[in-house]
Amino acid sequence: MSEQSEATPSAVDPGLESAPEHPGVAQLFAALACGELLAFERLARELDFAPDQQGRIAIASMAGAEMTHFDRLAAEITARGLDVVAVTEAYMPVLTRYHARTTPRNWYEALVKAYIGDALAADFYREIVPALPAAAADVVRETLSDTGHSEFVVPQVRSAIVANPALRSPLTLWGRRLLSEAITQTQEVLATRDELAALLFESSGDLAGIGEFFDSVQTRHAERMRTLGLA
Amino acid sequence: MSEQSEATPSAVDPGLESAPEHPGVAQLFAALACGELLAFERLARELDFAPDQQGRIAIASMAGAEMTHFDRLAAEITARGLDVVAVTEAYMPVLTRYHARTTPRNWYEALVKAYIGDALAADFYREIVPALPAAAADVVRETLSDTGHSEFVVPQVRSAIVANPALRSPLTLWGRRLLSEAITQTQEVLATRDELAALLFESSGDLAGIGEFFDSVQTRHAERMRTLGLA
Repeated sequence: MSEQSEATPSAVDPGLESAPEHPGVAQLFAALACGELLAFERLARELDFAPDQQGRIAIASMAGAEMTHFDRLAAEITARGLDVVAVTEAYMPVLTRYHARTTPRNWYEALVKAYIGDALAADFYREIVPALPAAAADVVRETLSDTGHSEFVVPQVRSAIVANPALRSPLTLWGRRLLSEAITQTQEVLATRDELAALLFESSGDLAGIGEFFDSVQTRHAERMRTLGLA
Repeated sequence: MSEQSEATPSAVDPGLESAPEHPGVAQLFAALACGELLAFERLARELDFAPDQQGRIAIASMAGAEMTHFDRLAAEITARGLDVVAVTEAYMPVLTRYHARTTPRNWYEALVKAYIGDALAADFYREIVPALPAAAADVVRETLSDTGHSEFVVPQVRSAIVANPALRSPLTLWGRRLLSEAITQTQEVLATRDELAALLFESSGDLAGIGEFFDSVQTRHAERMRTLGLA
């Protein structure tokens, strides 16, 4: 696909600089921006569960970082002559559905969701970078670069499970549910947003790309569950 | 006071560089950081009132900016060898009281509070800068520099009042209440935190400084109420 040739440094095409950008790029930024906005909203709501000032600050800092990402993506959308309000609104239903189906009922579910959600987003960002035109890849890399805010979760969850082993089983189920809902809603987006699916999976030539993508996400999810002490 | 001489560029004192910092500086950063954290929490809660995606994005961006300020102040607190969690926690009661007494009941109260609260904070920051040692003044100036997120409020409130003049009177009372609660709680902080009061008002030599400070805040508040269409 000629629109994708910017992603291949070895491509020699004098028309490259002025080639129209793949329309999936703006859609991708819109989907990511909407994801950041809703992640912010949900994290902010979960402040109510924070048992202490440390937890409150940690969750608020994560939420703040989501809005820094949002602002970066919004600037890119605006630079493309698009209206941030309109393009992000289109992704609200599917992302609202994800959060409605994964609403934490307590502090530990909120922590696990923050950690797993952050990591799944980072996985997703990392997987799509190679499929993107260079300029778009830079934006996604930058947006990814300051994650890691959720690392405070690991010792908290691990020590909670040691203190109260009965937490392990429900939190393990919770982690599985987070992954399965994330995959379901991502598939929903890809099924309904042709430009986005084309952008991300055209380079692989067939649908195998999607399968490999989800396999890789699942492998890393399993590692992270072990890190949290959730077998 | 020798701790304050850094704020006076004309002072000649070879011991300046190594002079111990006024202990009020760390307290000031703690109070401001706690203020940013709670402003973030309250704004995030008010997302529920947003009537549309534009309002949601505007409020979320303001809230995100509060956490950027918080992070900046937290870094300064940490650099002084203090624990951010502990020092900010000390200001939670008074700031929680302010927000509990000024909890918006609808979208327009939320907008007016966002605008007035942001401006009062900016006033406060501006007033205290001259009283601060140079390095601390820079931090406060930087924290202040990216306010203006609340400017979107003005046309929204003005057009709402034109469309529904019955909004004017309750919103005017609301604006007065915001100012009076802000002053009450600031006085409470100054009355109980000697180091902070000393830092901010020692340079004026007597208590007149406090009176002038609140007079100036009130004058600017009245201008802003007119800007909002609230006489």
